[in-house]
Amino acid sequence: MTSIKDVAMLAGVAVGTVSRVINNSGAVKPITRRKVEEAIQELNYFPNEVARNFKMQKSKMVALLLPSIWNPFFSELAYYIEDELDQEGFKLMLCNSGGKPEKELYYLDMLRQNKVAGIVGITYNDIESSVSNDIPIVSIDRHFNKKITCVTSDNYEGGRLALRELVKAGSQKPAFMGSITSVFSETMNRRKGFIDEAEVLGIDYVIYEKADPIVDDQAYFDEFFGTYPDIDGVFAITDMLAANYIDRATKQGISVPEDVKVIGYDGIQDSPYFHPILSTIRQPVEEMARMSIRLLYSKMEGVSLEQQVYRIPVMFKQGETT
Amino acid sequence: MTSIKDVAMLAGVAVGTVSRVINNSGAVKPITRRKVEEAIQELNYFPNEVARNFKMQKSKMVALLLPSIWNPFFSELAYYIEDELDQEGFKLMLCNSGGKPEKELYYLDMLRQNKVAGIVGITYNDIESSVSNDIPIVSIDRHFNKKITCVTSDNYEGGRLALRELVKAGSQKPAFMGSITSVFSETMNRRKGFIDEAEVLGIDYVIYEKADPIVDDQAYFDEFFGTYPDIDGVFAITDMLAANYIDRATKQGISVPEDVKVIGYDGIQDSPYFHPILSTIRQPVEEMARMSIRLLYSKMEGVSLEQQVYRIPVMFKQGETT
Repeated sequence: MTSIKDVAMLAGVAVGTVSRVINNSGAVKPITRRKVEEAIQELNYFPNEVARNFKMQKSKMVALLLPSIWNPFFSELAYYIEDELDQEGFKLMLCNSGGKPEKELYYLDMLRQNKVAGIVGITYNDIESSVSNDIPIVSIDRHFNKKITCVTSDNYEGGRLALRELVKAGSQKPAFMGSITSVFSETMNRRKGFIDEAEVLGIDYVIYEKADPIVDDQAYFDEFFGTYPDIDGVFAITDMLAANYIDRATKQGISVPEDVKVIGYDGIQDSPYFHPILSTIRQPVEEMARMSIRLLYSKMEGVSLEQQVYRIPVMFKQGETT
Repeated sequence: MTSIKDVAMLAGVAVGTVSRVINNSGAVKPITRRKVEEAIQELNYFPNEVARNFKMQKSKMVALLLPSIWNPFFSELAYYIEDELDQEGFKLMLCNSGGKPEKELYYLDMLRQNKVAGIVGITYNDIESSVSNDIPIVSIDRHFNKKITCVTSDNYEGGRLALRELVKAGSQKPAFMGSITSVFSETMNRRKGFIDEAEVLGIDYVIYEKADPIVDDQAYFDEFFGTYPDIDGVFAITDMLAANYIDRATKQGISVPEDVKVIGYDGIQDSPYFHPILSTIRQPVEEMARMSIRLLYSKMEGVSLEQQVYRIPVMFKQGETT
């Protein structure tokens, strides 16, 4: 295995000079730099990143902590996050928490030990107190009480937009359909936007929510169909809930979009071959991913940020369900 | 920042003793071990993994090199790979190559510099010559010429099974539909199994293939519909191709499964709410993921493996298209 000493010997310089060339630190004469670079090339020498990290006491590794990569929204997010990191030579470490608080804590400990350069986290549990102050962190979708930077889609405007689109499609009594988490989540603003816009337009509306997670789907929908037989529009808090509703409504003899217009939230479908193609509020996944990483870089460099929450505009995507 | 010296001082032992406790190396008296562990807890000391890696000259990081995490088959695979790695305290580094050879080479170089403990690779390009001999590697779906361990689903049996299921559903003239890559791929065995089983059963069949990647979908399907108006069964090499075929067939007035029975390969659908629900040969994703990592561990430990290719049994999953 080629060592830094071999490079120094071939280039006819000191080891410290080779080190300065590799790390781009300190002054090196152009002619000396060229000699070192040629020696590196000739010997096919790869500087050892592990050793370098040791000296610099940090790694070029960023951790992505999320419930599960096996979820189309998260895997699209991970794709763009890795792409953005790679442009600056950072690597992505993937951590699936399964949404379990104890697994999230375990990972946060592990990440502290491994001195990652930063963390991008999508957590839905109350783990505030365990978040270390020494590691820069950016959260997606989720507020922490500590001053942690958060990037989300503009959930409030998304809720307003969904209500307007339902009304535009002919709905006169739309319902908001969701679940309530114990900890505040940015996604709650979807309901708030829906309500505010309905009030502004003077539209009669329904709010239907149960505690999260919904364990018994059947009971959840039975109660909805039984209590609100007269609704003619549904804004579901996620695409998966919208698709679930449509499946059950169809079995009840309710036609979508003829009887009930349906709008979801996320925009996870990327294939035109599977139906129903949902009308939905599309999360700006790529922009959210790239923004998170750029904010993380700012925090690594100690730049103080102007805002705590960064909201990225959303768009309505017309499908077959409105 | 707490150091190992602080721990040694509080426990009243030498630094070397603390190190032996942390690394579980060498004999330490139980009472001494307890003192050290109490000191570690009291001081909230985290041994520095970066420093430890430096001494051991290796990291507990495994890289997953794949075309794109933004693909349901790969993201499910990544989920189980990370889960299996975590059980032994290994971390997963995610590398999206975009399927581009130059990006794959770039990552292989990067991984060599970073001294990862191993690589799990899903590559479809001819990068054999660049694969380093020093890093243990396990490939999924893909043979390398060099003796690299490969884990795949049993593509050959999958092809046979698909043919049998099409015939069982009533097809008398089934077609295999796919694309041909320039490099040998394990997925080619799907066609071989299909042909062999058709020969055994004395069934008339059609093979329809074009060079990979298929750039012009429209031309691909126009030629198929024009050339083979009489086929009544399709085994598509992937679920996405099956779904694409069904969409276009429907627009031509062909009913699935009444006129043509269709079977895909992968089993990527995990939601019962989107249609058509494909009849498909389901890849044993979880088993493939866990097997890859267990084989990687064996290679890290220098155990010589009995086989070069490990084929995991597949299953037929009944959907709405046969």
